[in-house]
Amino acid sequence: MHFRPLHDRVLVRRLDAEEKTAGGIIIPDTAKEKPQQGEIVATGPGARNEQGQLVQLDVKPGDRVLFGKWSGTEVKIDGEEFLIMKESDLLGVMDEAGTLKKAA
Amino acid sequence: MHFRPLHDRVLVRRLDAEEKTAGGIIIPDTAKEKPQQGEIVATGPGARNEQGQLVQLDVKPGDRVLFGKWSGTEVKIDGEEFLIMKESDLLGVMDEAGTLKKAA
Amino acid sequence: MHFRPLHDRVLVRRLDAEEKTAGGIIIPDTAKEKPQQGEIVATGPGARNEQGQLVQLDVKPGDRVLFGKWSGTEVKIDGEEFLIMKESDLLGVMDEAGTLKKAA
Amino acid sequence: MHFRPLHDRVLVRRLDAEEKTAGGIIIPDTAKEKPQQGEIVATGPGARNEQGQLVQLDVKPGDRVLFGKWSGTEVKIDGEEFLIMKESDLLGVMDEAGTLKKAA
Amino acid sequence: MHFRPLHDRVLVRRLDAEEKTAGGIIIPDTAKEKPQQGEIVATGPGARNEQGQLVQLDVKPGDRVLFGKWSGTEVKIDGEEFLIMKESDLLGVMDEAGTLKKAA
Amino acid sequence: MHFRPLHDRVLVRRLDAEEKTAGGIIIPDTAKEKPQQGEIVATGPGARNEQGQLVQLDVKPGDRVLFGKWSGTEVKIDGEEFLIMKESDLLGVMDEAGTLKKAA
Amino acid sequence: MHFRPLHDRVLVRRLDAEEKTAGGIIIPDTAKEKPQQGEIVATGPGARNEQGQLVQLDVKPGDRVLFGKWSGTEVKIDGEEFLIMKESDLLGVMDEAGTLKKAA
Repeated sequence: MHFRPLHDRVLVRRLDAEEKTAGGIIIPDTAKEKPQQGEIVATGPGARNEQGQLVQLDVKPGDRVLFGKWSGTEVKIDGEEFLIMKESDLLGVMDEAGTLKKAA
Repeated sequence: MHFRPLHDRVLVRRLDAEEKTAGGIIIPDTAKEKPQQGEIVATGPGARNEQGQLVQLDVKPGDRVLFGKWSGTEVKIDGEEFLIMKESDLLGVMDEAGTLKKAA
Repeated sequence: MHFRPLHDRVLVRRLDAEEKTAGGIIIPDTAKEKPQQGEIVATGPGARNEQGQLVQLDVKPGDRVLFGKWSGTEVKIDGEEFLIMKESDLLGVMDEAGTLKKAA
Repeated sequence: MHFRPLHDRVLVRRLDAEEKTAGGIIIPDTAKEKPQQGEIVATGPGARNEQGQLVQLDVKPGDRVLFGKWSGTEVKIDGEEFLIMKESDLLGVMDEAGTLKKAA
Repeated sequence: MHFRPLHDRVLVRRLDAEEKTAGGIIIPDTAKEKPQQGEIVATGPGARNEQGQLVQLDVKPGDRVLFGKWSGTEVKIDGEEFLIMKESDLLGVMDEAGTLKKAA
Repeated sequence: MHFRPLHDRVLVRRLDAEEKTAGGIIIPDTAKEKPQQGEIVATGPGARNEQGQLVQLDVKPGDRVLFGKWSGTEVKIDGEEFLIMKESDLLGVMDEAGTLKKAA
Repeated sequence: MHFRPLHDRVLVRRLDAEEKTAGGIIIPDTAKEKPQQGEIVATGPGARNEQGQLVQLDVKPGDRVLFGKWSGTEVKIDGEEFLIMKESDLLGVMDEAGTLKKAA
């Protein structure tokens, strides 16, 4: 079964938290409100602005994204859990093939 | 009797939850706030944007849709229960003839 | 005496609830918040959008409409009770001469 | 002394409630929140929309209007009590020389 | 010292309440929330609308205005008390040289 | 170190209250919520309106301004205390070389 | 790993508070709500205004910025803590190579 999000919504598959990739030992984190990682599975066509133009989304299926822990609505499709949320709930896109500028 | 929703409202016939289709045994779900499935029965003409243009809806009668458990207003027409809600309350459209991209 | 609603308001005469028409025996309904039926008696000229254009209403006198139980302000004109409400409080229009698509 | 309301405000002289005109005996009404009748005494020039255009009011001095019981600010001018309110607080205009369509 | 209000603000000198002018004996009023009278002392250049146009104010220095009792911020300039408020807090302008239409 | 406010923000140096200039003896004021005086030290480039145009600020460095006692965010730059606030938090500009129109 | 903020969001590396640079001895500050300093690490492409135009951000990577103590969402990337916030949460930009106008 396929799922087509409406408007500016995206369908997200939750990924394991980043601590696993950045280090070896996983310490149970008390700060449970940290952003979560996920993968975009499907995107809506975008929302219309006040000029009637369709504003396409800035993310595409396959993007690894960060979002707030409490964002989105849980939905089960073909037995797998997903999240439906608005693109504005996404904080940004992770890119494995790059590095952030180090502190000066 | 027919019912014509106004503006960007849709008339929805509630469907049985998805658990029945994805598996055999139905386990009473404690998470009652999960999205519900329904079928679009009638749609309004759309809302007008600030340019005075009619913005047509993205769903049509027959679409299987997901919506939040508490969305919409219940109404009984010719003895059958329906829900009236705004299109913005719909989370997305289910499509039997497709599959979601598997996790990488 | 006549009453001319201003802007996007409509004057509505409350009708008896639908249970009477769909069946014979009327069971006192505990769900008192169900939508109510009414008949449009008079309509305002419409509201102006941000372009300064008058947006005419989508309902006209004689239309049978559904609205939320708590919508509108009660007013007595020539001894009869009416409701004044905004068109946006109306959920849709009932049409005797039609039928809703049956469940698939 | 004259009073010139600003923007989309109107100056209203409160009239006796309608019960007096529709019948003979006046029964003290327990529903105190019913709309009130008044007469427009002076109107502002209108508010400007987002295009910078002046949107003139739909009521004029002499109109008999209905408004919510708690609408407006009381003001005494030359010893007489008036109400200042926004046109959007007005529910509609009463017209003695007409009748509402009877129930079908 | 001069004071130049910014945007759509006005500087108002509070005047004695109207009761003094309309009659002789001044009865302490229990309804303390009645509008207050004042005189416009200085006006801002106006606010800009969404088209970037400067919308000039509808009042000018010298105008006698009514405003809600709790409107504005008190400020002392050269030892005298004034009020700074937005033009939208003004209810209207009093004009000595006119009379309101009498009740029909 | 320099500080460049963003958008429609201004950097303000708080000045001593006006009581000192208008008289000799300074009486501790119980009305602590009176507006405060300050001097504009730096201004942002302005905010963009909905047409995408930059709307420049109406104040410039050196202006003596009034603002509400609780406006702005305190910040220490090179050891000196300043306030960062939006231009809309400013009530007006004081001008030593002028006088307000006297009461009629 | 790289992180690309969406829309008008920025990624900020928190810097040590300014007290260290302005003096020698660091006194634990009781006013914990003072603005914080940070360095812009990555910026989003900007938000779209209502004309559909992309409004680019006014800050760029490397800028030293001030922001409210409670602004933003904490995120850990490659083991380092960052903050994601909207540009509108930034109060201004610090510039080492300048001085603020002294008090008159």
